Amino acid sequence: MRPQEIIEKKRDGLELSADEISIFIKGVCDKSWADYQTSALVMAMFIRGLTDTEGEILTREMLYSGDVLDFSDIDAPKADKHSTGGVGDKTSLLIAPIVAACGVTVPMVSGRGLGHTGGTLDKLESIPGYNVRLSSDEFRNIVKSCGFAMAGQTEQIAPADRKIYALRDATATVPYIPLIVASIMSKKLAEGLDALVLDVKTGSGAFMQKFDDSKKLSHALVETGVKFGLKAQAVVSDMNQPLGQFVGNAHEIYECIKILRGDAAESANATAELSIELAARMLLLSGVVESIESARTLVESKISSGEALERLRKNIGCQGGDQSVCDDPEKLLTKGTHVHEVKATESGFISAIDTLMIGNTLSEIGGGRVRAEDEIDHAIGYECVARLGDQVAPGDTIGILTCRDESQGERAGSKIAAAHVLNEVAPELPPLVHAVISFE
Amino acid sequence: MRPQEIIEKKRDGLELSADEISIFIKGVCDKSWADYQTSALVMAMFIRGLTDTEGEILTREMLYSGDVLDFSDIDAPKADKHSTGGVGDKTSLLIAPIVAACGVTVPMVSGRGLGHTGGTLDKLESIPGYNVRLSSDEFRNIVKSCGFAMAGQTEQIAPADRKIYALRDATATVPYIPLIVASIMSKKLAEGLDALVLDVKTGSGAFMQKFDDSKKLSHALVETGVKFGLKAQAVVSDMNQPLGQFVGNAHEIYECIKILRGDAAESANATAELSIELAARMLLLSGVVESIESARTLVESKISSGEALERLRKNIGCQGGDQSVCDDPEKLLTKGTHVHEVKATESGFISAIDTLMIGNTLSEIGGGRVRAEDEIDHAIGYECVARLGDQVAPGDTIGILTCRDESQGERAGSKIAAAHVLNEVAPELPPLVHAVISFE
Repeated sequence: MRPQEIIEKKRDGLELSADEISIFIKGVCDKSWADYQTSALVMAMFIRGLTDTEGEILTREMLYSGDVLDFSDIDAPKADKHSTGGVGDKTSLLIAPIVAACGVTVPMVSGRGLGHTGGTLDKLESIPGYNVRLSSDEFRNIVKSCGFAMAGQTEQIAPADRKIYALRDATATVPYIPLIVASIMSKKLAEGLDALVLDVKTGSGAFMQKFDDSKKLSHALVETGVKFGLKAQAVVSDMNQPLGQFVGNAHEIYECIKILRGDAAESANATAELSIELAARMLLLSGVVESIESARTLVESKISSGEALERLRKNIGCQGGDQSVCDDPEKLLTKGTHVHEVKATESGFISAIDTLMIGNTLSEIGGGRVRAEDEIDHAIGYECVARLGDQVAPGDTIGILTCRDESQGERAGSKIAAAHVLNEVAPELPPLVHAVISFE
Repeated sequence: MRPQEIIEKKRDGLELSADEISIFIKGVCDKSWADYQTSALVMAMFIRGLTDTEGEILTREMLYSGDVLDFSDIDAPKADKHSTGGVGDKTSLLIAPIVAACGVTVPMVSGRGLGHTGGTLDKLESIPGYNVRLSSDEFRNIVKSCGFAMAGQTEQIAPADRKIYALRDATATVPYIPLIVASIMSKKLAEGLDALVLDVKTGSGAFMQKFDDSKKLSHALVETGVKFGLKAQAVVSDMNQPLGQFVGNAHEIYECIKILRGDAAESANATAELSIELAARMLLLSGVVESIESARTLVESKISSGEALERLRKNIGCQGGDQSVCDDPEKLLTKGTHVHEVKATESGFISAIDTLMIGNTLSEIGGGRVRAEDEIDHAIGYECVARLGDQVAPGDTIGILTCRDESQGERAGSKIAAAHVLNEVAPELPPLVHAVISFE
């Protein structure tokens, strides 16, 4: 069957058969489909739509385009968390050691930052020596010995997704739920998990800014997980402001270690709260606790006892990193940097924050990537001093930018200041967790 | 402006601005747009549609993506004909010398055959030595000395179209009128013409099989020509059976020379009739005659006087070909071939012919190209003995296949026989010219 025949069918709004979707995905992998044929079909899928059946088949074909990890030799339940990405979203770094300390194995496959969103792998690489490029065997051994490992997606996991996602990113075909679901779930289903918690962000710094869209995506993700025999739940969490105290690679590791040490600033509370919620839901889905309440209690005890910090220390050792950051997290922040205070120029309540703008501004000065091939400057970061609902007067510090020099500070700082919308009346504050979506 | 922003706009059904279309076409030419981005935008255009304004801008940008020929140093009016392609459609080979003999210059830029349709360049190359790869200077000099020249599109003519057409062919985005119009007209407007006659085929062997579609395409082509200051008319002509006596490269040249010599078989009448009609309309549009009747009379006189044949002989000489084919056209057909008679197996009136099937069958045995890179066997051909409306009995010869051996003859012959639908009652015969579309 020629690619044109399959493309033509979807172009005309017809449903593709399982065979046709299979031919497509095999063609993407063996390169018998040219990139321009793939992108034409994906655009037709985007505009004409995919039925539930087509979406499920697409996910399955993308999943089985590569290897599926098998951790059946590990007795403990296997769980992971996936976030749709945000600004200052560092919960993976807390969740993995916490959940592992509770006896659930976390084979965490993470990504790199792009655009306004950060990536767990980049954050980890701000720990001197930390290696995220693990072979399958290394990954498996670290998972076994530490209870968790954190590494990048290998070439063998869902190769069709990697190819198709790169094309979608370049052809304005990312924001369509069935394609998003197939992309996320084909990778997560390949991890050999028992349970998956999806952190779907909503708000000004989220990929899907509207709550309704985030809810729809959550439903579709959870439904697909369940169809494939996975225990899955989604938490729709707030991204109307950066999560917690810091944005930036080294800064976010610093914040997480401070939380695990029990001496974090109050402004890191949202990070801790959301991480506890997500970790607790992973434990609940994994069946190691009876209720969400006892799950939360267990998670909190693993932080306060220091067990979670010791897990992280062990993992850093296994992955080649400098374990002393666990004792002296300040050393993460002492590279030759310049500090620029971002100040309010008017008075009023902070009623909205353009979180996307903050994420993009930090990427532009090296804190993230504008293009996939960009280098990261791990020292670049931003501390959120004023938050949604805070009242400020001209000259008040709303944030502290860590950058390379004052001219960079001036430029980026004024963009960040402009991302804060002031109003005479106090805004209604968004909840941290907007909804929990499950099929149980 | 990033390609994604322009693609996104059309993906969502919005009208693109002149600037955006210009950025797109420049990006196609300077390769700052990847093929997969072009094909994604073209698919979005196909599904979401283009407004009249967008179509006109697209045509203009594609036209000016390359050189525009300038024959202003030639006093005579310049005219050309373009056909949407069919089976046995050989009128160009007659029209060019006839119209040139009437004092109108014909700078004819032609194409290659692909799929079921033949191409003028391939047909010409069955004349020993005939060179269709002319430089701009050679083309210009032959146009001046012979009144016409026939050559392939140079790299410099509408390069954006060549790129985009190849992608459309591979991504099922060919059959959409505004894209077809931009493709055809960007090339034809680049020829520096005063007048253009469009031969839009309709029926079982046409690119657009339904009369309504062919009529819509005709309107759109003529309207675009007029908008760009060209005198344009379209003739919707019948393609419910192969045109005239022969299909096949050498065979079609043979048929044309026989017509110009005045000793063609009666079954070549449709070829002569349609060529006369199209040539007459070129003369009328060019303003060298007062009425279509006097145009037809002038055209017929140039055939019967032998002047058109002498023009062709002169052109063959100028383009390096063997002029003796004009005196002895039979030599075109004497290569080492095998003849297979295609016979009726039932009795009845021939009520329909799957002309597409005949064209494809001949391509498959080398008479044309299945893929753009295929080699042509110029000797392969087919003579249409029985035509629509003819009554046949089992064993009657309905056609004669010239092929390479008997096994090829058996296979292709049975496909061609099956392409003939027999019925107990005589069908209503289609007219040769279904409609003439003009804006005058």
